[in-house]
Amino acid sequence: MSATASQSTIPNSLLDADEPDTVRLSVDEARAIGEAAVQRIGYSAEDARIVVDQLIDNMLCGYKFAGLPRILAMAGDEKIKLGRTPIRVVKETPVSALMDGGNHIGYVTCYHAAQKAIEKAKAHGICCVGVYNTYYSGRNAYFVEHIVKAGYLAMHTASNKPRVVPPGAAVPALGTNPMCFGFPSEEGPVTFDIGTASMMWGDVMLHAHLNELLPEGVGIDENGNPTRDAAAALKGGVAPFGGKDYVYKGYGLSFAIQALGLLAGSAIIRDEVLDYGFLFWAVNPEIMLPGNDFKQRMSQYVREMKALPKQPGVSEIRIPSERASRERERRRVEGLVVKRKVVESLRAL
Amino acid sequence: MSATASQSTIPNSLLDADEPDTVRLSVDEARAIGEAAVQRIGYSAEDARIVVDQLIDNMLCGYKFAGLPRILAMAGDEKIKLGRTPIRVVKETPVSALMDGGNHIGYVTCYHAAQKAIEKAKAHGICCVGVYNTYYSGRNAYFVEHIVKAGYLAMHTASNKPRVVPPGAAVPALGTNPMCFGFPSEEGPVTFDIGTASMMWGDVMLHAHLNELLPEGVGIDENGNPTRDAAAALKGGVAPFGGKDYVYKGYGLSFAIQALGLLAGSAIIRDEVLDYGFLFWAVNPEIMLPGNDFKQRMSQYVREMKALPKQPGVSEIRIPSERASRERERRRVEGLVVKRKVVESLRAL
Repeated sequence: MSATASQSTIPNSLLDADEPDTVRLSVDEARAIGEAAVQRIGYSAEDARIVVDQLIDNMLCGYKFAGLPRILAMAGDEKIKLGRTPIRVVKETPVSALMDGGNHIGYVTCYHAAQKAIEKAKAHGICCVGVYNTYYSGRNAYFVEHIVKAGYLAMHTASNKPRVVPPGAAVPALGTNPMCFGFPSEEGPVTFDIGTASMMWGDVMLHAHLNELLPEGVGIDENGNPTRDAAAALKGGVAPFGGKDYVYKGYGLSFAIQALGLLAGSAIIRDEVLDYGFLFWAVNPEIMLPGNDFKQRMSQYVREMKALPKQPGVSEIRIPSERASRERERRRVEGLVVKRKVVESLRAL
Repeated sequence: MSATASQSTIPNSLLDADEPDTVRLSVDEARAIGEAAVQRIGYSAEDARIVVDQLIDNMLCGYKFAGLPRILAMAGDEKIKLGRTPIRVVKETPVSALMDGGNHIGYVTCYHAAQKAIEKAKAHGICCVGVYNTYYSGRNAYFVEHIVKAGYLAMHTASNKPRVVPPGAAVPALGTNPMCFGFPSEEGPVTFDIGTASMMWGDVMLHAHLNELLPEGVGIDENGNPTRDAAAALKGGVAPFGGKDYVYKGYGLSFAIQALGLLAGSAIIRDEVLDYGFLFWAVNPEIMLPGNDFKQRMSQYVREMKALPKQPGVSEIRIPSERASRERERRRVEGLVVKRKVVESLRAL
């Protein structure tokens, strides 16, 4: 794990020019550092395993800000001080479950909600699972992949706290509200994960940290005026995605995802309709099509898309989640590159 | 129905300056003309009732090109010549149904699929219903409203034939692939209906008909080159929605909806993965939340959105489907305005 000696063997592709002081970690090494840190900030060994499994997967897929550094943010989150109660199912039918997340972080509650969705889809073919009284869950596709690997199609939506300003409004009212679809294929899960804000909130924070201007049309300050100043947008919000021509599509999707959050119980705890609600829908394709048919058709579909005639200069047609899957395979072998300062901070927690 | 005498009483809001030769029809009059015409082109009285009920609703909501003139397009559709077999359920579980549409038009097959979804959501709380071997279904929100009025949340996606060119490709491969979400509230259904193409195909046809240029970034000609010529785009296709900054969101949604079409059996009849597949998901909110809770929360959510502080010069925050609902109420009273030529053509069928 002492990586200085081996840095000369790190492929250039893994070294960011602006981050010279990095260490290369194997997946097992990164996992051990992460789990120890998460336990030190008060989580059980089991919860730490669940949280860090996603963080490692995010890093493998190339989402470095969704990786180990997130543990530092978790440690500082005010919600952690409010205490936790056990995650429990408060309402259940053969095809549904509503779960009180007990103020556990979404990494953990969504893991259990996805497991519940798998159980119910397995037993009854289709289900709906919601979880409330929870917060930040990370990358939706991580949970959706779990469901898809079990053999099911999945849709997952996540409403969260107000960051996004509806067209015409002067204040944020909708969350960044991502949605993710997942499909089994013979080559593994194919997922499509979309945020409905014009910029991820973490990216706005990063722009503010680096003192970089936001693109036009993204930021709104605390007085409801357009701004390119990221620090000002942090006190206000951001537009839905879409730009001038398509903002009503981004807004409408965000609106719908916030409504699906209500179905997941988002309003139960604080009597507040604009809050966190994580919803999962899973369906076993065998209730619709014979045997392995869906997976085969999905693979045929992806093959046909890849084989389309291309525009000049285009090397390939991109399929959603394909890049992340490829990067994951590569990094499993090459290892993960983490800033030395992050590793030191994690050890100091 | 002879409207010339009464035209002076038509509110100005209903008279398009470029369409002076119109007649005003009551809803009952428009329905009678439409049903007679649909029966004359070979549909049963029951099917005619189903088709025209949507066309009238589309006109009431302000979608005039989705109204009675569509019957003229139906009469000319090559699919009508291929003959029809009865719509039947080919695979069923308590929570799902797969339906062979028997080459019936989507107006009719989706009506029956939505009815089936209502039955199953009522009996078991959640369901998935798909229909294949069918085509053009009109406005998704029409079917979703039926499900929502029965008390359920709904999602409906519709894959269709290749019109949309994936980023980097030179030919269309995806349908215009709309998706619609619907939510019950105490004031009635709230729906969000979105196409995933940069322009509706009917709108491209209209631009070609009127010899109007397409906006930048929409059209692709048959050789895969960008074009603003609508007639050239009709031989090629259109981009997914999103523009330069967000096209991968539009593409990904379109990709996912095409995959959901596979679940609805789109590949069964012609062994072709890029074809029509209409999928419905419905869920009874009472499997998740107590009694009337979802409807109340949904109303609270809409009220809070409407009450947000607004930007200067903005008169109201728009809620998806609100405008259409308002126009519907107004036109129910004021009547429908149809081109005289359309009425004459319908009578001559």
